[in-house]
Amino acid sequence: MKEIMVVKIGGTDGVNFDFLCDEIAALVKSSQPIVIVHGGSHDASLLGEALNYPPKFLTSPDGFNSRYTDARTLEIFTMAVNGKVNTLLVSKLQQSGANAFGLSGLDGQLMIAQRKKALQSVENGKRKIIRDDFSGKIEHVNASILHWLLSQQMVPVVAPIAISGEGEALNVDADRAAAMVAGALQAEKLLLFTAVKGLYQSFPDENTWIPSVKISEIDAVMQFAQGRMKKKVLGAKEALEMGVKQVAIADGRVENPIAYALSGQATWIGGL
Amino acid sequence: MKEIMVVKIGGTDGVNFDFLCDEIAALVKSSQPIVIVHGGSHDASLLGEALNYPPKFLTSPDGFNSRYTDARTLEIFTMAVNGKVNTLLVSKLQQSGANAFGLSGLDGQLMIAQRKKALQSVENGKRKIIRDDFSGKIEHVNASILHWLLSQQMVPVVAPIAISGEGEALNVDADRAAAMVAGALQAEKLLLFTAVKGLYQSFPDENTWIPSVKISEIDAVMQFAQGRMKKKVLGAKEALEMGVKQVAIADGRVENPIAYALSGQATWIGGL
Repeated sequence: MKEIMVVKIGGTDGVNFDFLCDEIAALVKSSQPIVIVHGGSHDASLLGEALNYPPKFLTSPDGFNSRYTDARTLEIFTMAVNGKVNTLLVSKLQQSGANAFGLSGLDGQLMIAQRKKALQSVENGKRKIIRDDFSGKIEHVNASILHWLLSQQMVPVVAPIAISGEGEALNVDADRAAAMVAGALQAEKLLLFTAVKGLYQSFPDENTWIPSVKISEIDAVMQFAQGRMKKKVLGAKEALEMGVKQVAIADGRVENPIAYALSGQATWIGGL
Repeated sequence: MKEIMVVKIGGTDGVNFDFLCDEIAALVKSSQPIVIVHGGSHDASLLGEALNYPPKFLTSPDGFNSRYTDARTLEIFTMAVNGKVNTLLVSKLQQSGANAFGLSGLDGQLMIAQRKKALQSVENGKRKIIRDDFSGKIEHVNASILHWLLSQQMVPVVAPIAISGEGEALNVDADRAAAMVAGALQAEKLLLFTAVKGLYQSFPDENTWIPSVKISEIDAVMQFAQGRMKKKVLGAKEALEMGVKQVAIADGRVENPIAYALSGQATWIGGL
């Protein structure tokens, strides 16, 4: 059996679902085991706006952004992520000929997370403590469920929702969820698709695109990562620490995006 | 191993999720295999109204009502049913101590349906043909997925969405989906929970409550069934024809609703 590949894609913005689903279906037919982890932040924000409950974001003291997820936002988030993006991806993959199977971290306790019970947020330079937030950090992935689905020639499609020790649904970062899934499966490769070609020293100057990053250089390149790119670099680092061999930050807008990344047209992270 | 019980519950209206989830968790601990099928019509209607896309209903020439499911309604339906109701039920069951696993008919092609490509609807006495409807009738249930989940001591929680031969998501009736699931699993019992105590000859006159219906009497009692109750009686008939031994139309508002139904406080259908 070929080694496992984990593919992370965003919501319905940026990455071309049709290109990716077609390529994944073809790869699965050639016996490549693939697990997909997806996001949905953009869809959750759109749905929140349509329901007159627009998103709010928190900034942690070390500069990471995250969605403020109170109980109503969590409900909107699960509707957008489980109900829209996951369903759409599974349907598209099925239409492309891959037997996809959608699930979230709640299902069979696939992804167990620690709820962030007191979250620090910086607003206008002041620190604030947030206590009603339903987001968390994944601590364990129950890989046996994914192995069973792969043994049935299915393509698991994982939504970025985890379960707390108390059975609560939690919003988790999709890039880091993908890293945890790849680590738990001891995947060979983790591909993080986004709407750019990878990491840039000075985005969007094409001349500063970075084709490869050694493990020893990760902390140094973190400073170049802006906004959501920070989480991708962090996810890459976490996956490599768990034994994943190579991580790519890759362009999800092109046809055959996986082959494009494998040909070197992505920022590949790994190696000493 | 005890024989399988299939439990159908509606969306968030009427049936008490907390009572049911607590009882199911206790039964599962005593090694009773249970599969849940749920609805979500009410939630889909509320979400449609909040999104300025209120639901429309069709009436078939033989008097059955169904949701008119165009592409946008389907998206709203999957958000409400997969994203809200399924997630809520799985989370509540996990909190009660049952290892629930949510899925829909799309996942691994669990429920394959024939799309109703040309639907007849009667409006103001006139027949109309509807061609852009994404609803269907289930023809096959892939029971092996449910058997695997049950073998892992999990509680499958099935959303009423099926997959067409072309990979499209389809809205299916939840009572009849539960009947098909119960038939495919050769379940011993199918319990259809609702917000009344069962079938009445003349609803809501308590004195006309019907405690039991023989198979030979089903067609005769169909005339007493109003609105959605028609689909429950039809589902009961279909399940019995597939080999399920007993079907109950039962009250989901009470504490320990399964024990209450098993004690005879429900309309039990089956037997010659």
